[in-house]
Amino acid sequence: MKPTGPIPADFVPARGQLLIGGARAEALVARAGDTPLFVYDMAVVERRVARFRAAFPSIDLHYALKANPFVELVKRIAPMVDGVDIASMGEAWVALGAGVTPDCLSFAGPGKRDSELEVAIGQGVPINLESEGEAERVLAIGNRLGRTPKLAVRVNPDFELRGSGMRMGGGAKPFGVDAERVPALVRRIVEAGAEFRGFHIFAGSQSLDTEAIIEAQAATIALAARLSEAAGVEPKRLNLGGGFGIPHFGGEAPLDVERIGAALEAGYAGRPAVLRETGFCLELGRWLVGECGVYLTRIVDRKESGGQTFLIVDGGLHHQLAASGNFGTVVRRNYPIAVAEKFGAEPDETVNVCGCLCTPLDRLGDQVALPRAGVGDLIAIFLAGAYGASASPSAFLGHGPARELVV
Amino acid sequence: MKPTGPIPADFVPARGQLLIGGARAEALVARAGDTPLFVYDMAVVERRVARFRAAFPSIDLHYALKANPFVELVKRIAPMVDGVDIASMGEAWVALGAGVTPDCLSFAGPGKRDSELEVAIGQGVPINLESEGEAERVLAIGNRLGRTPKLAVRVNPDFELRGSGMRMGGGAKPFGVDAERVPALVRRIVEAGAEFRGFHIFAGSQSLDTEAIIEAQAATIALAARLSEAAGVEPKRLNLGGGFGIPHFGGEAPLDVERIGAALEAGYAGRPAVLRETGFCLELGRWLVGECGVYLTRIVDRKESGGQTFLIVDGGLHHQLAASGNFGTVVRRNYPIAVAEKFGAEPDETVNVCGCLCTPLDRLGDQVALPRAGVGDLIAIFLAGAYGASASPSAFLGHGPARELVV
Repeated sequence: MKPTGPIPADFVPARGQLLIGGARAEALVARAGDTPLFVYDMAVVERRVARFRAAFPSIDLHYALKANPFVELVKRIAPMVDGVDIASMGEAWVALGAGVTPDCLSFAGPGKRDSELEVAIGQGVPINLESEGEAERVLAIGNRLGRTPKLAVRVNPDFELRGSGMRMGGGAKPFGVDAERVPALVRRIVEAGAEFRGFHIFAGSQSLDTEAIIEAQAATIALAARLSEAAGVEPKRLNLGGGFGIPHFGGEAPLDVERIGAALEAGYAGRPAVLRETGFCLELGRWLVGECGVYLTRIVDRKESGGQTFLIVDGGLHHQLAASGNFGTVVRRNYPIAVAEKFGAEPDETVNVCGCLCTPLDRLGDQVALPRAGVGDLIAIFLAGAYGASASPSAFLGHGPARELVV
Repeated sequence: MKPTGPIPADFVPARGQLLIGGARAEALVARAGDTPLFVYDMAVVERRVARFRAAFPSIDLHYALKANPFVELVKRIAPMVDGVDIASMGEAWVALGAGVTPDCLSFAGPGKRDSELEVAIGQGVPINLESEGEAERVLAIGNRLGRTPKLAVRVNPDFELRGSGMRMGGGAKPFGVDAERVPALVRRIVEAGAEFRGFHIFAGSQSLDTEAIIEAQAATIALAARLSEAAGVEPKRLNLGGGFGIPHFGGEAPLDVERIGAALEAGYAGRPAVLRETGFCLELGRWLVGECGVYLTRIVDRKESGGQTFLIVDGGLHHQLAASGNFGTVVRRNYPIAVAEKFGAEPDETVNVCGCLCTPLDRLGDQVALPRAGVGDLIAIFLAGAYGASASPSAFLGHGPARELVV
């Protein structure tokens, strides 16, 4: 038997059933039409937002749309947050279609095309500049269109977020402008007549190290102040990035978000004079929506091989690549998993849960302890709210995309 | 500087240009409309098929459609091969739409749904059974429809393909039926009145070990003979799987396909009496089409960070997940890569080639030596003919799918 990650505390057994938004898994599948199905429980998101608001009363909350761009979810989350951060104009259209105003967007990403920049400037979408070359392209397009671009500078900080699953800053990076070159770029933008909005400083993501986040946020404020003084500007906004992880695997513990909030509130209250008029924001994706999602997939075969039991389901890595251990992880570990109609029951056996794809990579549960399940039963895989449907190769092997449902 | 894989010998510099199907990269982009673009050169595929036919005169050639399901490519390859192997009914519709007759398909895959089996049986598509449970479902559906299913048994062999990138057989596996239970299953199928077609024995894939493939094929023939004798059948067909790899990374050498052919031809000629009437086939995907494809992506930014140079392109892991090192590999290594309009030129510098996605995972070339290239130039990434467009998360971050073009 191998360990699985912790099931989010939002999901508690109700007479042996998994309820999502108060409904049974089978009822949700019937509503959506079929499996495989992602269900997103917006009450979970509301709880995360409320927790953030309580812990960070002075800090704006942005949603990093890349975590989950399903438009029905975006429509529901948009009114709960103060801004939406996008990484392509494709994501911009989703946000605009969900009712977000252009000024509440911010457009980051290292490879923005001229065609995207034109639309962004034309629509009044603020842009986070990733390089001096991009700045020149933006200024030229603004001149050509007769529009004033709204520009922030993404900074490649001179520190890292320790213990983050993905380092976005520190050392040689494709993201942002190295800190020492930022003041010159800010002066260039201001002199060219663009609207300077502030800084975007993103040191890493998916961190479960409370102290490391507190340290990185303090370093971010200090860096923003230094850059502002060197450039002679008082920025309107400081986006401190995100980086709040959630536990995926056995042995991982959640962040102490309240402690981070207390530290950041103190940092905000005591911020250097040059940041006096600066609004602070955090940009969260996985922490807001990751735990709201459950991937439901039906067992189509139960078989034995080499003394092991295999449950073969109708879903797989084409919908949940990360849960198969094939996206951004070196060692495959088990996401939390359950039998939906025997939720909370004691395990009866150790099984492998494999997807329907004809590749050995397609394993969703490796030697996991579950109550006995057979053909027709629903398997639930948790933590499916972020980097699931949209971050998986849905065309692979021709089984088609999953359904998605917001409750 | 880090090594890159070998550029396929099919692509030779022509006055410093990369030609694909005789056309310059920029001309192909103009024809397709934009980058990012996958171009598949069918002359390369024709050469692979001719090489196979010369080396394996007595062995049928099947195309494993999962390697590349782009319908224009399938239309061109279908007349060159003797069968098409599919892993879902989605793939079946592609093959049928490309003009393949149902009887030339074979449908494998561990998670076939009843709805798929109904259509397959109704259309007369041969099915490779993956378990006893699936066999009973198939027989029941055949009875209900009044149709005789065409059935092969996929065998989980009692040996592995040494040195394969992915083990498909040996030990506890989700694929096929453990060899010792196969005779009973074959007798059950025959007694139930289904049409028994033979065996599918697939020991592994992406192997570059010539001797290991020769060994595995000999073991496959011996196993098929043993199973046939135990079951009292003379199979019509033996699918020996595939497993032919291609070199992706520095230091890898290609297979000696002619030596494999000589050994398999000898094995076929000397096959046991029970296989006297059995047609042999190999099922190849990556080896047939992997090297025909080139992924063309345009540089949108050139930047410096931490003393390194970054070329940011308009493509990325959303189209070429495997080239980013995030699919089925533990350590990231560089695929072969070139500047299309300086093809064959001496390198001027060491650069990182990063995709446009806002994630540090999106790196297509890590510290690779290239001739100098700047914004607007086309980067070519080779080995894009298999497990590229269809095996990547094309919706991730909203940049949209790549274009595909057959030449």
